[in-house]
Amino acid sequence: MRCSECKEEAIIKIPYAHKYLCKEHFIQWFENRVEKTVRKYNMLEGTRKLAIAVSGGKDSTTLLHVMTKIAEKEGIEIIGITIDLGIDMGKRYSVKSVEYAIKNYEMLGVKYRIVKLKEEYGFTIDEAKVKIRRPVCSTCGLTKRYILEKVAKEEGADTLATGHNLNDIAQYVLTGYYNGDILSLARLRPVSPAENGYIKKIKPLFLSPEKEIMTYALVKGIPFIYDSCPHTFRVGGETQDNIRRSIEEMEDKIPGFMISLVTNFEEKFRPLMEDIPKGSLGKCKICGMPTNKDREICSFCAIRMKLTEVKVNS
Amino acid sequence: MRCSECKEEAIIKIPYAHKYLCKEHFIQWFENRVEKTVRKYNMLEGTRKLAIAVSGGKDSTTLLHVMTKIAEKEGIEIIGITIDLGIDMGKRYSVKSVEYAIKNYEMLGVKYRIVKLKEEYGFTIDEAKVKIRRPVCSTCGLTKRYILEKVAKEEGADTLATGHNLNDIAQYVLTGYYNGDILSLARLRPVSPAENGYIKKIKPLFLSPEKEIMTYALVKGIPFIYDSCPHTFRVGGETQDNIRRSIEEMEDKIPGFMISLVTNFEEKFRPLMEDIPKGSLGKCKICGMPTNKDREICSFCAIRMKLTEVKVNS
Repeated sequence: MRCSECKEEAIIKIPYAHKYLCKEHFIQWFENRVEKTVRKYNMLEGTRKLAIAVSGGKDSTTLLHVMTKIAEKEGIEIIGITIDLGIDMGKRYSVKSVEYAIKNYEMLGVKYRIVKLKEEYGFTIDEAKVKIRRPVCSTCGLTKRYILEKVAKEEGADTLATGHNLNDIAQYVLTGYYNGDILSLARLRPVSPAENGYIKKIKPLFLSPEKEIMTYALVKGIPFIYDSCPHTFRVGGETQDNIRRSIEEMEDKIPGFMISLVTNFEEKFRPLMEDIPKGSLGKCKICGMPTNKDREICSFCAIRMKLTEVKVNS
Repeated sequence: MRCSECKEEAIIKIPYAHKYLCKEHFIQWFENRVEKTVRKYNMLEGTRKLAIAVSGGKDSTTLLHVMTKIAEKEGIEIIGITIDLGIDMGKRYSVKSVEYAIKNYEMLGVKYRIVKLKEEYGFTIDEAKVKIRRPVCSTCGLTKRYILEKVAKEEGADTLATGHNLNDIAQYVLTGYYNGDILSLARLRPVSPAENGYIKKIKPLFLSPEKEIMTYALVKGIPFIYDSCPHTFRVGGETQDNIRRSIEEMEDKIPGFMISLVTNFEEKFRPLMEDIPKGSLGKCKICGMPTNKDREICSFCAIRMKLTEVKVNS
């Protein structure tokens, strides 16, 4: 097929936009769409320094490339944050992920900070998997959210961008509708304003399908770790994965299904949830970060205490 | 497999309830579940005469059988309503459907009324398909809602029961989430109370999966028309059908998906839509029935005027 914009050979079909695009026009289209999303939801309003969470995977490295361009135009300072989670499993997964992140930072000349979980907090995700009962993906998610929040603030950033893509968000939305988790849905936003001690968070890729992100990373020659986290093999076949696959199958049958599900959630249904109480927030007695649900100690410090077997505040 | 309740051979698996059931225990289970649903949502509160819409298909004939039992216990009078829609398409579809409905009325000794669309309103659905631009399924749905409402009132019923099953409702819910149709979702209820001139409407099978209804009809030997409406072949492959198939695939992978989606909609999300304005209602200048959206003439009378080419009020 030929590109809908020129006579070059197309490299991708965008079914929901009825377009075939060549390499150059796809890059332009992809970047424009992210920029439009950023502007439509006023993601960078009031932002002076933007922290970008970069794991080394396709989503976050693409995010880094696109946001660096946008931030430059806007005169916004950027800092990359990468966490060495200590995931090895015989595959050097974290070591390689961090290497890929650094390659991108250096390609783009972006300042960055690498946080080594073991050195700074005394444990690795592999250790957490063995030593505590919580599902490892839950521990890992909690750890990443905690450290990103903390380090972004330490670096003087006022906004934190993460690489959640359209498929991720569609999965969260349908899962929330399915299991009635109104509290999670009320919090699921493209822009979460700074409140209750939390930094402003943005998801610039929340309308970008995974397939487009992968294609963008490949055609731009962005270095990224292709492997999946070795722990994710353990949660295969579960409800979340089934819902994700079903959504992707629906997208194939009904092009634009994911965008419609997500934008209608954001524009029509989430506003109905504005008044849902978010739970009272306090400060963790150990680290001073915000805690949920009137807990004295935040979940991260609780996990850390269990894993390091020392009193964190001693 | 053996029945989970006795040693008989099981005829059906109920994956979301982790049960295998024999014929007798399945009949008991199915009827109990419908009765529990009727009671949980107070469907028959204040009902003295119940109209049941019977098309002759598996859902409505099953509804008639189960509700006749429940109504007897409660001392509630029943009237069946069947519409001869004039769908032929070389297959005598409406003629056969009406015959099946009558077989059931007579089996159960239930009073009934047959409404012949052509004789009483001057047109058939087959004619509407050819003569007016509106999709035939939309005209048919509108016609059925209008006539059922009108005839139920004429017969002195205070409540109208329809055979919408769990798969139907799950499809409506997901379609509404997908296309952001908040007005339709706000109106989608197991019990729609009498208001604005409309009769109370109930959906006793809204938590019964299609597969269970089909099995019930077959094992009880309920006569029903197995053929699909000949017009539905024309809408195959469209969004609604794709969504329905996807939901059924999700149910296979995640047993209980449909029940969870629908009950969480009803219990968690629809209450958020209570305040959504339903649109102001007036009375049709021709027939006196309620009209939507400040129209002088209701949609049914407008269609009827076009089709019969006479002024209905002359």
